[in-house]
Order: sequence, then C-alpha cells, then structure tokens
Amino acid sequence: MIKITLPDGSIKEFEKGSTPMDVARSISEGLARNVISAKFNGNTIETITPLTEDGDLVLYTWNDEEGKKAFWHSTSHVMAQAIQDLYPGAKLTIGPAIENGFYYDIDFGEEKISESDFKKIEDRMLEIARGKHDFKMREVSKEEALNFYNNEKNPFKLELIENLEDGSITFCDHDTFTDLCRGGHIPNTGIIKAVKLMNVAGAYWRGDENKPQLTRVYGISFPKQKDLKEYLELLEEAKKRDHRKLGKELELFTFSQKVGQGLPLWLPKGAALRERLENFLKKAQKKAGYEMVVTPHIGQKELYVTSGHYAKYGEDSFQPIHTPNEGEEFLLKPMNCPHHCEIYKSSSWSYRDLPKRFAEFGTVYRYEQSGELHGLTRVRGFTQDDAHIFCTPEQLDEEFKKVIDLTLYVFSSLGFENFTAQVSLRDPENKEKYIGSDDVWEKAESAILSAAKEKGLNYVVETGEAAFYGPKLDFMVKDALGRSWQLGTIQVDYNLPERFDLTYKGSDNEMHRPVMIHRAPFGSMERFVAILLEHTGGNFPLWLMPEQAIILSLSEKYEKYSQKVLTLLENNEIRALVDNRNETIGKKIREAEVQKFPYMLIVGEQEAQDGTVSVRKHSEGDLGSMSVEEFANLINTEINSTLKPFETEV
Amino acid sequence: MIKITLPDGSIKEFEKGSTPMDVARSISEGLARNVISAKFNGNTIETITPLTEDGDLVLYTWNDEEGKKAFWHSTSHVMAQAIQDLYPGAKLTIGPAIENGFYYDIDFGEEKISESDFKKIEDRMLEIARGKHDFKMREVSKEEALNFYNNEKNPFKLELIENLEDGSITFCDHDTFTDLCRGGHIPNTGIIKAVKLMNVAGAYWRGDENKPQLTRVYGISFPKQKDLKEYLELLEEAKKRDHRKLGKELELFTFSQKVGQGLPLWLPKGAALRERLENFLKKAQKKAGYEMVVTPHIGQKELYVTSGHYAKYGEDSFQPIHTPNEGEEFLLKPMNCPHHCEIYKSSSWSYRDLPKRFAEFGTVYRYEQSGELHGLTRVRGFTQDDAHIFCTPEQLDEEFKKVIDLTLYVFSSLGFENFTAQVSLRDPENKEKYIGSDDVWEKAESAILSAAKEKGLNYVVETGEAAFYGPKLDFMVKDALGRSWQLGTIQVDYNLPERFDLTYKGSDNEMHRPVMIHRAPFGSMERFVAILLEHTGGNFPLWLMPEQAIILSLSEKYEKYSQKVLTLLENNEIRALVDNRNETIGKKIREAEVQKFPYMLIVGEQEAQDGTVSVRKHSEGDLGSMSVEEFANLINTEINSTLKPFETEV
Repeated sequence: MIKITLPDGSIKEFEKGSTPMDVARSISEGLARNVISAKFNGNTIETITPLTEDGDLVLYTWNDEEGKKAFWHSTSHVMAQAIQDLYPGAKLTIGPAIENGFYYDIDFGEEKISESDFKKIEDRMLEIARGKHDFKMREVSKEEALNFYNNEKNPFKLELIENLEDGSITFCDHDTFTDLCRGGHIPNTGIIKAVKLMNVAGAYWRGDENKPQLTRVYGISFPKQKDLKEYLELLEEAKKRDHRKLGKELELFTFSQKVGQGLPLWLPKGAALRERLENFLKKAQKKAGYEMVVTPHIGQKELYVTSGHYAKYGEDSFQPIHTPNEGEEFLLKPMNCPHHCEIYKSSSWSYRDLPKRFAEFGTVYRYEQSGELHGLTRVRGFTQDDAHIFCTPEQLDEEFKKVIDLTLYVFSSLGFENFTAQVSLRDPENKEKYIGSDDVWEKAESAILSAAKEKGLNYVVETGEAAFYGPKLDFMVKDALGRSWQLGTIQVDYNLPERFDLTYKGSDNEMHRPVMIHRAPFGSMERFVAILLEHTGGNFPLWLMPEQAIILSLSEKYEKYSQKVLTLLENNEIRALVDNRNETIGKKIREAEVQKFPYMLIVGEQEAQDGTVSVRKHSEGDLGSMSVEEFANLINTEINSTLKPFETEV
Repeated sequence: MIKITLPDGSIKEFEKGSTPMDVARSISEGLARNVISAKFNGNTIETITPLTEDGDLVLYTWNDEEGKKAFWHSTSHVMAQAIQDLYPGAKLTIGPAIENGFYYDIDFGEEKISESDFKKIEDRMLEIARGKHDFKMREVSKEEALNFYNNEKNPFKLELIENLEDGSITFCDHDTFTDLCRGGHIPNTGIIKAVKLMNVAGAYWRGDENKPQLTRVYGISFPKQKDLKEYLELLEEAKKRDHRKLGKELELFTFSQKVGQGLPLWLPKGAALRERLENFLKKAQKKAGYEMVVTPHIGQKELYVTSGHYAKYGEDSFQPIHTPNEGEEFLLKPMNCPHHCEIYKSSSWSYRDLPKRFAEFGTVYRYEQSGELHGLTRVRGFTQDDAHIFCTPEQLDEEFKKVIDLTLYVFSSLGFENFTAQVSLRDPENKEKYIGSDDVWEKAESAILSAAKEKGLNYVVETGEAAFYGPKLDFMVKDALGRSWQLGTIQVDYNLPERFDLTYKGSDNEMHRPVMIHRAPFGSMERFVAILLEHTGGNFPLWLMPEQAIILSLSEKYEKYSQKVLTLLENNEIRALVDNRNETIGKKIREAEVQKFPYMLIVGEQEAQDGTVSVRKHSEGDLGSMSVEEFANLINTEINSTLKPFETEV
C-alpha cells in the first residue's frame, strides 16, 4: 500500500501501482470522467501512470491550466502525426503547449505549407482523434532512441537525444505514431473534439539564426466544438477591441516616428478623455484629503543615487543628460517618489500635520527595447496617477483602508466589476533581505491583511513576494473578454523615508521616521485608457464619452433648431455634436451607431415645432420624443447611477 | 545759418554756434527750463554745446531715459569729486549711468568704505550741487591728458587714455573737479536736488579677476526730494513683493538642491493656484475653439534637426539623451511646436477643417547657466500656456485678432491694466534674410498692423525686429510698481509649415501650405505667477486666491458652527479655512490680515444663534453681519466684476 496526499490535505491509501485515474475514481465517477492529467510529487504524469510510492497527487481537468497544457501538448502529437501522414518528408523537432494552444516546429524540406492546407490537416487530426487512441509512455535506451530517429533520418531529434542521459529517455506512442517526449498527456485522443490551426510562421532551430529555418505551425484544440466557437468569437472581438485600432478610429492618440517610438501623442479627443479621467480622480482625491503638487520631469543624477534607483536601473535606462558646461548630470525621472520626498523634506512636520498626501499626474520616462513596445500598454513615456502618503506607523492601518476605498471607487465608476487582489508579504525565512525592523513589518503586513479582509477583497497571499522596501497589495481586473490586467497597486515603503532621512516630531517631542505609501489606482493614464478601450470596446461609461449625444437633423432646414438644441445641451453640460449634412436620416443613424454615440437626437418639423427631440439610444433604439430638459435628466440619471460621489468608510 | 531738424520733422534755421538750449528756448521757456541733455546727429551732447552744422536734434528732459542717463552720469562726477575731497588717496576709474542711477569704480587704496560713510559723502555731494557749477567739456591733447593723470598718479585713467586716439580726448570740468569723459551732462550741478548712495560692492578693474579689485559705489539722484522718497518707497515695496520671498511665505513653491537648480517644485498651494490659472485659460480657450493635446517631454534629435532648433540651439542646450542600446538620441523638448506639427501631420486636412488650434500646457526644458537663474522668472524647466494655430493665409487676419482678444481678456481678468505692444516687422532692405514670399509677408504684416489698430492697442512698430520665420506682436505689461515685464507673444510662422511639409487641400483641390501662429498669453506659468506675485504682492484677484475667506471663531465653543459655515461656503464653491485656535479674536484678525485672507468671518454666540457671520474685508475692515448666502453673493459679485466670461468680438 502507498499513501497518497491530496491537495486538501487528506491522505488516502492505495495499492502500489494504482493510477491517478484510480484515485479519481475513488473520489467520484464525475471526476474520473473529467480528469485528464496529473502531477505527482511535482512531476507531470499521465492519468494511467502507476504510482509506486507515497506522495502528493494533484488531479487536473480541462478547467485547470495544467489540464489545458496536457490537452494541447497531446494535440500537438496528433497534429504531428497528421502532418507526417500528409507530408511524408516532414521532419519533426519540438512541439510544446503554449498560453493559448500549441505549436510544432517542423522542417518541411522543399515543401511549403500555408493556411490553405490547414483544412486537410485539421480533418486528418479529427479522424485520428476519433480513433480514441491511448497515449502511452515508454522508457527507451539511448541506443534505441538514436536508432529510431536514424531510421527516420531526423537530425533534429538525434541532436536532442544526444544531449539526454541514457535511462532518462521516454517515447510516447499513440495509434501508429511515436514521438520523443517527456510526458504529460491526456488519457486518449478521443477527448479532442475540436481543432483549429491558427497560423504558420518561420522559426530557427533552437532559436538560433545560424541554424536551419523551420516552419512553426500554431494550433489550438478543445474538448467541445462550442468551446472552439467561443474562443474564435473572443479572438474576433479582441481584434475589434484592440486599443491601437480603436485609438485610431476614435482619434484618441497617435504615434510619430519623428517624435519617437513608444511616445504617444494625445489627439484632442484623447486628451479630453484623459482630462475627464484625471478630473474624476482629482475630485475623489480632494475629498480624500490629497493635495496636488507639480514637479519637474528631470532630476539630478544625485537624486536617484540617494533614492537607490540609479544603482538599480541606471544602466538600463535613458542615459544621463549633460549640460554644456558646469558638468551637471540630470536624468529623466523614471518615478515621482524622489521628487515628492524632496517636497516633504522642504518643511518640518509634526505628528499633528500627518498624514500628508501628495498627488501628481506625473509623467515619467523609462527605456524599453523597441521590440517590446506595444500601443499604449508598453510605452517609453507615461503619466502615473501617482500619490505618496507620508504617515506615522500608527496611521498606516487607516490610510491603507482609505486607499483601498479609493481604488474600489475608481474600478466601480469605470465598470470594472471583476477583480482580485494579491497581498505580497516578506519571506519570513529571509528577513535579512528586507529593510525595516520586524516590528514595523509585522504591523504593516497585518494592516494590509486586515484591510483586505475588512474591505471584503477576493485576495491571495503570496509570501516572499514583497518588495525589499515593504509589503504591497496589487489589483488585477478582468475585462469584458475575461482577460486579466494588473491595475492599481498600493505599496508600503520603509526605504525611501530612510534614504531621504525624512522625519516628523512625535507627540513625545522626539524625531521619528514616517512611513510612505505609494499608490496609483489607474496605474498610468496610458495603460488605463488602453485597458478601458479593450474592456468597453470604446463604449465608455456615459460620463466619460467624448460626445454623449449627436443631433441628427432631418434636413438642412432644421440647422437653426439643431444649434438651439446643442446650446441647450451645452448649458446642461452635455457634450454633443450636430450632424447637419445633406444625407438621409437612415444613413445618419447608421453612421452614428458605428461611431458609438450613446444617444441620437433626431430633429425635424415636429420637434422644432414642439421644442422636443426624438431620442434613440445606441444599440437599443427608439426612446420616443421628449423635451431637451427631460433628455438632460435622462442622461444625468444614467450618469449618476455609475458615477456616485466618492465616500470613504474609514 | 544752420538747419536743425526736430523729431517731429520740422526744420528750423539757427545761427551757427547756437546751442540745444537756444533751440529749446526758441520752442518754449518751459522746455528751456527742463531740457537737460541732447542728442545731435546720433551723438549725446551737452545743452550748451555749440551746433556748427545742419543736423537732427533731440532734446531730453528728466522724463526721457536719455535725460535720466545724463542726470545720473553727471551725478557720478559730483560723487567722484566728493569722494576725492573726503578720501584724497582715492583713484577714480570709470563712472557710468545705469538703469537706476549710476556707479563709480574707485581704488580706495588702504582705506575701506562702508554704508556708514554714505551720509558724509551725500552731504558733501549736496553741498557741491548747491554751488550750481556748470559742466563744461573741453578737448585736450593726449599729452595733456597723460600729464594730468601722471600728476594724479592714477594708473587706471592713464591706461584708458593710452587706448584713445589723440584728438578724440575730452575732459569735463565742474567746480574744482576735472574728469576724463566723453560727455553727456546736464547743464549744471544745481538741478541735482536729492542724492542717495545705495551700496558698495567689489569689482575688478575692467571686469578681469586678474586685475586689481576696486570698490564700486552705487548711487542714485533726483531733481526733487519727493522723487527720491518715492523711489525708496518703491524699492522697499519691491523687496516686500519679491516673488521668491512671497512664494516661500505663501507656501507656493520651493527649490531643492538635489532635484536641481532652476527646477521649481510646486507645493500644494502653488499647484492649486497654477491649476486655477490653467482652468481659467482652458475655459476661455475652449470657447475660442482651441483643442487641448498632450505630447511627451522628449523627442528624437531628428525632430529638432527637422525643425531647425537643433542647428540653432543644440550645442548650448541640455545634451542628447542616449539609450542603452539601439543608438537612439532624444532631446528634452525646448518647445512644443515640433510636436504639434507632428500632430497636425498625423491627419490630412481640407481648408474646411482649418483653423486647427492645438493647445497644451507643455513643460519645456532649456539650459541656463546657474548664475543666470532667478526664482521663477529665470528657470531651467517651465510650463508654457502654448498653442499653435494652423490656418489658411486668408484666415490669418481674423485669427490674429482673436488671439489679441484672448490675450487682452487674460490681462484684464488678472488686473494688468497697463500694457503696451510691439509689432516687429521685417527689414524691407534685407528681404533675403526672411523665409516666405513677399506676398505672404505683406499680407501677414498688414494683418498684424490692422489687428493692433482695430483692437486699439498702444503699440510701437519695430522694423527689422521680426524673427526670420515671421512677424510678431509682443505685449509688455507694467506692474503695480511701474516695472515693465514682457508677457504674451503672438508670432506668425512660415518656416515650420515648410520644414515639416504641412499641407491642406484648398477649395481649388490643390495642396497648400498652412500658416502657423505661436501664442502664449501667460508666456509661462512660472514667469506669470512670479509677475503676478510681484504685481499684487500676493493679494491676487479674489477668484484666484488660495483661500477666499477664513472663519474666526470667538472661542472653541463655536467649532461646530464654524464647521457648518465652512460646509455652506464649500457648497457655494468658496474656498475657506477655519481658525478655531484658543486665541483672542484680536490676534486671529491680526494674523489673518498678515496672511492676506480677503475676507474674515467672525462667528460667536450671536452669529451661531442668528445663522450669520460678521464679515471683515482685508485692509478695509468691518462690513457688518450677514447670512452665509448673502456673503456668498457678495464674493460672487466681486469675482464677476473682474472675471467676466471670455467673448471674442471677431
């Protein structure tokens, strides 16, 4: 008998040689039907691998990342078989699972393959799948393995085997196909119900451009046809919502090769959107007791030597700016904290003055390799919605909760309802890696944990993930397509107050060190706008829309009345445009729908006479006719339902 | 007879040998009494210098800059005489007039002089002045001149004479005193009625630190005792209003050695003040059809090579920023125009889309020697209230007028009532120095001139002062102390549209070049706030004050009512503070006066009962008691009297 420990901590006894599938069956028939992969004592194994010793066992289904990995890796074997059937000269190299699906790098020799060949490969794959062939691992000697691939005349596999030790080499068989493989497969090909090859690309053998070029074939597979359909729809939707595409269509931002890569230029509509976001946060921050400051975009190198940023990032950053004489050296600021520390230091403070909360929409510059730049999500210059709170250790608890309140307020006002949090604590085994005394760390960590609990956050704790200068809490939001994005961060910092020698006079008349909190609910304006674009597809919350309504005149005759309506709307602080073109109303409505105007106000003879507007809502249709005041109320009611005033519960 | 042409163009005949004083007398006795200096054919002369040929004559009184210069230069002779009387070993060097008064650099040998010696020198100067001694120029030979200063054992004057040509050397005599001098004196010492020595400083002979150190004695003089009194009061007031002093007292901004010289850090109150100014201008700009954009603070070197700024300023600026790899070079942006050109270029435009008016509070960086930095008026990083208007040549006229309207609106809303303008045109003799065709220049110059005339500006025209890229209009404002500051500028630019190859499609379906207007009514936020501080002494217009009112409770008993009043004020968008300290009301009022709170609201038993406040106005006193609503109306009426909504008359 062997002892098997399950993830919930329970221990069960099984006969030696029992398989993960046996364990699953002992738990429930349902689990046995769904289990497709397993991990035993940290190693990925098959569900039919015999267990011969005591150990920890995790069972995976399709719903687990590890389950998907086994599913997709197994499908790559099926694709390899199909390709070898169809292209007998094709030589296989490696074929791993990736984040979404799998690929196989293949040497097709003289043959070329393209998207038009996908259908026949997919058909053959499904045919193989339907055969319900078991995946079976077997150990082979190095000699056996070399012989096999010598027969196949495959120099790539031979090279791989040469680097393996005899005794550690395994093959995987299914149907008539055999592959060199470390393992990690689903029980049999039969559960692969849907396959889709995505694209082909060139790839060098072992990523080395001096080695032969191979063809990388990307694919994905699912246990249900429906899953594939949903995935392809999601892909389509994500493509439509790509913030780079929407940013161009909605005229929000642009890039210029002459200004430089990764340095966005905000066009009028984008700058206005950004300003609305900033004003929204400013208003909440004012209520929460923050004070705005303004600091320059450069600082002497010395400033970053003091802060420690130079030692850490100096070499990989934008290089120092020299002056024509006087031998000075400045750096583009990569963060605002050193400047805010200098503002704190410009006065002397008593415990009665704290907390001081300095906020700034501070634009910072960080060098990124041009290949890593991506739209607004990975840039070289961006504006943080930054703030630094300087408080006494006793105030940390309450301040942390207030920051959580503010962050949650931002998420809810912008329609992010789905988020999780991660609390990063220090590694208690390696306390010497962290700055600050045991006492303050314990206080800060328990402050964060109790704040997260009290605020009802859905959070995980990661021990050892704290920065060396303090523990932190990060928020991940899920967008409308189910993709996760890291947004706001709240970090406690004991390091900078030390390095900048910041002090306050306590009630005991002695000088003390304040604690700093770094926080940015948006993260950066650039990244946030990008995520918001992809989350909403450009249908921003009404309060944020560039234009909340468009007035569509039935003909040019009603231009004067249209202008009157526009003025009335502007007096009610509603942003609107007039479309007075000589086009049919049908065409005007269709275009306004495409351009995502939340409301269309149609005006003609009747409306001009009655002093009304006929209202259509984007993607919902006709709401009937009403006075401009009634429409203004309608809009304001809708805005007030998402955009409530900020309240802190602390 | 000789022909004398006067500044008004009139020509009069005089006997050869007549003096400027004779000419003055021929015009009026009043002028003769006041004329103190003259310029003949471009050379400064005395009023008693005989005129021996035809020529242009300008007569100066104390009210002319040139008149003051003669007055002060003459007084430096008187001071030199007084010092030689009192310090027989003192050796004179040079003694010119300066912007406010004069100085004389003197070698006192072993003697030291300090402020405590000023009184006796001033007394002796006034004694000499009362002697009504004429200033008389005479020509001397080089030999005579050298002999004179050999007798005086004055190596400095000898060195000066060595460098002069025989035949061009003149001495000036008055009373018993003689000095080497080129001329430019008042008629006699008697009109010097008030003298004041200001300070002493060290100065090297000929500004060369390897040469002997001299003592520079600064002084000033006036034709009336009253003028001196006023000048000293003004100086005292200017010292009180020094923006660096006020900026510290009012907690508006600070500097940090670690961040770097000339890089201001805006403290909360300063940042809020600045934001109010920005919002004020944004609102007017929105009404005037501007669109805000946001651009990065760096650009590739290539961008500035294209704009021509690199060739012109590159070497003297902050040096390029290199990247760790990829060999890129960026520059801190010294101006926003190249970025805005790239925004214009990111779309294609038709004449129907123009004008486009891109505005940005753009922070720019320009290297200045550390010795030239001064508070907020001379900095290394500053935020321009910048905008660039891209229009057709036909639109230039109207756009220019609109910009003048906006600029005048800014001045009047901020209490600058006293300003002049300068129109800078190209030199018609050197047309090749300028970019752009004759046709467009003529159009632009006449547009500016007619706009200036139509808007009733008090302006001067300076031919040849245009930039090479276009004509311009600059505004100079006079502050409350009568000092002039250059503020807003409006510049036409034909150069950048050419260099960036900017185009629009005209009504003829051909591509055309737009014209650009650069404009900044404030100039920069830093400089403007500095000037506003010195102009108002910190008593900003009410709408701009950091706090518009302070609530002074008669005792801590009324804290609750004070808070209620504060909330009511905040609901009426009035910025206020509460002073609930346990201090006498007299002390609270005195301190609030010093801190320049525009209104003090005193609350006690009576007020709490009646729901009122007792209002005191800064430096005016009691206004009686009233409800908070009445007080809010009072404030809003006062604000609306200076801060009217922007209207353009075009």
